[in-house]
Amino acid sequence: MLKIVLLSLHLVTFASSRVVPNLDAIRTNMMMTEEKMLEGGSQTLTEKEILVDNLIRNLKREELNAGLRNLSTFAPAMHFFQAKPLIERSKIFEIIKKIPKGASLHVHNTASVSTTWIIRNLTYRPEAEYCTNSNGLTIFTAGDHKNCVDEAVNIQQRRFGMNFNQIRDFDAWLSSKISLVNDNPSIKHSNINEVWTEFEEIFDTIENLLTFLPFYKDYHYRMLQEFYDDGIFYTEFRTSFNELYDNFGNFYDHVQSAGVLYDVVREFGVTHSNFVGAKAIYSVFRRSDEQKLAKRVTMFTQVKMNFPNFVIGFDFVGQEDLGVPLICLQQVIGALPPETQFFFHAGETNWWGTSIDFNIIDAILFNTTRIGHGYALLKHPLLWNTVLTKNIAIEVSVISNQVLHLVSDLRNHPAAIYFALNLPVVITNDDPSFWNALGLSYDWYYAFMSLSPATSGLKFLKQLSLNSIKFSILSAQERMKMEKIFSVEWDRFLNEILQRNSFK
Amino acid sequence: MLKIVLLSLHLVTFASSRVVPNLDAIRTNMMMTEEKMLEGGSQTLTEKEILVDNLIRNLKREELNAGLRNLSTFAPAMHFFQAKPLIERSKIFEIIKKIPKGASLHVHNTASVSTTWIIRNLTYRPEAEYCTNSNGLTIFTAGDHKNCVDEAVNIQQRRFGMNFNQIRDFDAWLSSKISLVNDNPSIKHSNINEVWTEFEEIFDTIENLLTFLPFYKDYHYRMLQEFYDDGIFYTEFRTSFNELYDNFGNFYDHVQSAGVLYDVVREFGVTHSNFVGAKAIYSVFRRSDEQKLAKRVTMFTQVKMNFPNFVIGFDFVGQEDLGVPLICLQQVIGALPPETQFFFHAGETNWWGTSIDFNIIDAILFNTTRIGHGYALLKHPLLWNTVLTKNIAIEVSVISNQVLHLVSDLRNHPAAIYFALNLPVVITNDDPSFWNALGLSYDWYYAFMSLSPATSGLKFLKQLSLNSIKFSILSAQERMKMEKIFSVEWDRFLNEILQRNSFK
Repeated sequence: MLKIVLLSLHLVTFASSRVVPNLDAIRTNMMMTEEKMLEGGSQTLTEKEILVDNLIRNLKREELNAGLRNLSTFAPAMHFFQAKPLIERSKIFEIIKKIPKGASLHVHNTASVSTTWIIRNLTYRPEAEYCTNSNGLTIFTAGDHKNCVDEAVNIQQRRFGMNFNQIRDFDAWLSSKISLVNDNPSIKHSNINEVWTEFEEIFDTIENLLTFLPFYKDYHYRMLQEFYDDGIFYTEFRTSFNELYDNFGNFYDHVQSAGVLYDVVREFGVTHSNFVGAKAIYSVFRRSDEQKLAKRVTMFTQVKMNFPNFVIGFDFVGQEDLGVPLICLQQVIGALPPETQFFFHAGETNWWGTSIDFNIIDAILFNTTRIGHGYALLKHPLLWNTVLTKNIAIEVSVISNQVLHLVSDLRNHPAAIYFALNLPVVITNDDPSFWNALGLSYDWYYAFMSLSPATSGLKFLKQLSLNSIKFSILSAQERMKMEKIFSVEWDRFLNEILQRNSFK
Repeated sequence: MLKIVLLSLHLVTFASSRVVPNLDAIRTNMMMTEEKMLEGGSQTLTEKEILVDNLIRNLKREELNAGLRNLSTFAPAMHFFQAKPLIERSKIFEIIKKIPKGASLHVHNTASVSTTWIIRNLTYRPEAEYCTNSNGLTIFTAGDHKNCVDEAVNIQQRRFGMNFNQIRDFDAWLSSKISLVNDNPSIKHSNINEVWTEFEEIFDTIENLLTFLPFYKDYHYRMLQEFYDDGIFYTEFRTSFNELYDNFGNFYDHVQSAGVLYDVVREFGVTHSNFVGAKAIYSVFRRSDEQKLAKRVTMFTQVKMNFPNFVIGFDFVGQEDLGVPLICLQQVIGALPPETQFFFHAGETNWWGTSIDFNIIDAILFNTTRIGHGYALLKHPLLWNTVLTKNIAIEVSVISNQVLHLVSDLRNHPAAIYFALNLPVVITNDDPSFWNALGLSYDWYYAFMSLSPATSGLKFLKQLSLNSIKFSILSAQERMKMEKIFSVEWDRFLNEILQRNSFK
């Protein structure tokens, strides 16, 4: 019933005899057609780009061949926790780190900054504390004890008198509280619900530390810096604009919280000439009760009114598999201001044909601007064309989907097929802090090495940047600035690659 | 560039406003359209079938809901080695075992019979022995010592004097030599090449035991019996017609070996009224040297000439990832008799865009009748329509792909999408002996529970049977017999399910 119109019909016409005439020509034509169909395949490269493309393809071929010879060191087929040191030795990764990547469009603000920085910076400040909450979970804070059931321990004082090794072990223990990283991911988190439980706990552990006003500011400044250093000029982050506190006993509500972030973003722009901006997608926990949901609608309406260009839209967050499906949130959606743009998480699931899976259909029915994850879209061919013609970008968080147990070997990730079908995809990082990633480069590495064919090269990579820019929510002026910056930085990137001998 | 014609365009027309008019109607329409698009979706069920369908859907929903509540006992998301005892407690599995499945179209003869039977039957016969071959591998035999580097141990004598526990342990040791099963598959075989090495070794371990004429006959008779008991009336098996020997010092060449099998099949038919037959696909190890390949061409031509209706076609076997690609076997293919039908293994790989992956294209270019595995087809949208319009069935070996490390959670298996696209798929079992499966039921269980939506029911299951029959290589007379048997057995199946209270 679903008809797929085949571009190259050679195949059908000749394949009726066993001996194939013009076999080489047909094979070459097939390869070229597939290359053109692939994400970015219709681009035309400049002479300079062709040189870089050749270089990248050669390096890629080398890494793939090395993997074919020795799978035990082949990062693209491995879990990120085990692959990370291997990725960091990859020449392809070295190049990817230098690419101007445009925009980061799906990241949760309190899961965005490297764990190392949190430990080495925030937990070394005099205010940092930890305590236990009512669920028995160790949580971090900095003076706010409303969630503590025992006495808060000052972290700086706790370190006092420790020797070097003790401090190292203590910091590793602190780090383990805000990170999913471990040596044996297939054993430690044996299924998706286990890993999600720990994942959602980390949000609780970190929350009171980050809502301390000075930390809040510095954390978000650091987020922008880490992203900027990774070639990201613009960010759209999911946030709940939690209430803040300081050490003078003051509290700051959601509108003030938004204002603080707005100022951080503006301040960052002053000293970073390639920075285009950062905007917020207001996110509500999908399993909140009715009263809280109603409150959140009001809060969204208020922050949106106060910061109309900074707060660009609305989303629900939290593990879809545990409910509540979008269709049950219809009333909440209906209560929002009519011009609200949606960036719904949908289809972050393997439960095909269930109410969970139906989120992917409902997100489109509710006219979402982009889809968060869209992992399950592959199982709905009926929607592929809709996504294509309506230009609904799929925010693909490669490492997140692996760490959170949707897929093991990323070469089986559905986005490989989205790329093959040339669907609108943006590569995103979701919660890099929680798995010890940094910026977008690690996700890009997998996208290039695991989710695209051995033959893909610079066109594919450039398209990832172009897509991220295309699907950013930018004013005309911002877009012009972004395009100009990208064009300059892209050229700088090409020159840098060509000037370095180490890649040759 | 690839255009997907969308059947239901509702989505595109209304989704421009946030509040969706007639939401329920549209959602229902979407669900129904997807159900119709799915494999088997265009069938019309009889009243009796509707009753069974309801029953099956309810049981399926129950099992899925139990899985949502407790993932640690949810077989469809687990590795077969861990899932097997859970599957055997499933009511869905109990029903699937009773379904008349039609045909088994992709199985390697020396990996087809349950390990239990081999141990309890063959190794308990006076001729059974083991020894070590030149690679240090324990191999089984029954008088043929040409591959032994040490003295062969008679198994019956070895058991002599052992107590019950010692025999149990000894038999478990024997069993471990011809099985991949272990408690920790993710640890024991950490990557695809490791598991393939052990997998190909098992073929060596079992070979000399099975080429002993009396064992050869009984083994294949047993294969037909196990399949028959699982609702399989017809089998096409891959085989190399290895030379046989007996205990009188006689040897039997490939043509005689084929003759022996031909007689076993005929003999089986005499006492099994629902048996339609069994045929052979001649298989050649793809990494054989030129001389051996040439010899194999001659041997194939001879067996084909002697048993034109029994020997139906040709294939290359062995791990594709290690080479040799089909294109390099072009000369061998060209040297075969012009009317030869091909059943090429192709695309049993995750190496997209490499020469390995190109097998999937070349198999079609070389006009293959069916595709063995076709795992990589998903990454070639250009070929989907070709496969559909040319009716090239994809032989999907679900458990095999998992055990041999292409995919972990089978809900990520590409065949889920083949089903969603209504591509021609047959569910096959490949090497059930090596992973302690039996017949086709386990593969069917995963196809139904992991590779199709929660909403699929009897139509989907019936289509699996119908496809297996449709894509069998049958004469008009055989087809008529098969269809008649299926029709009677299908009705018997429906009655049996409806009569049993235990499912209600």
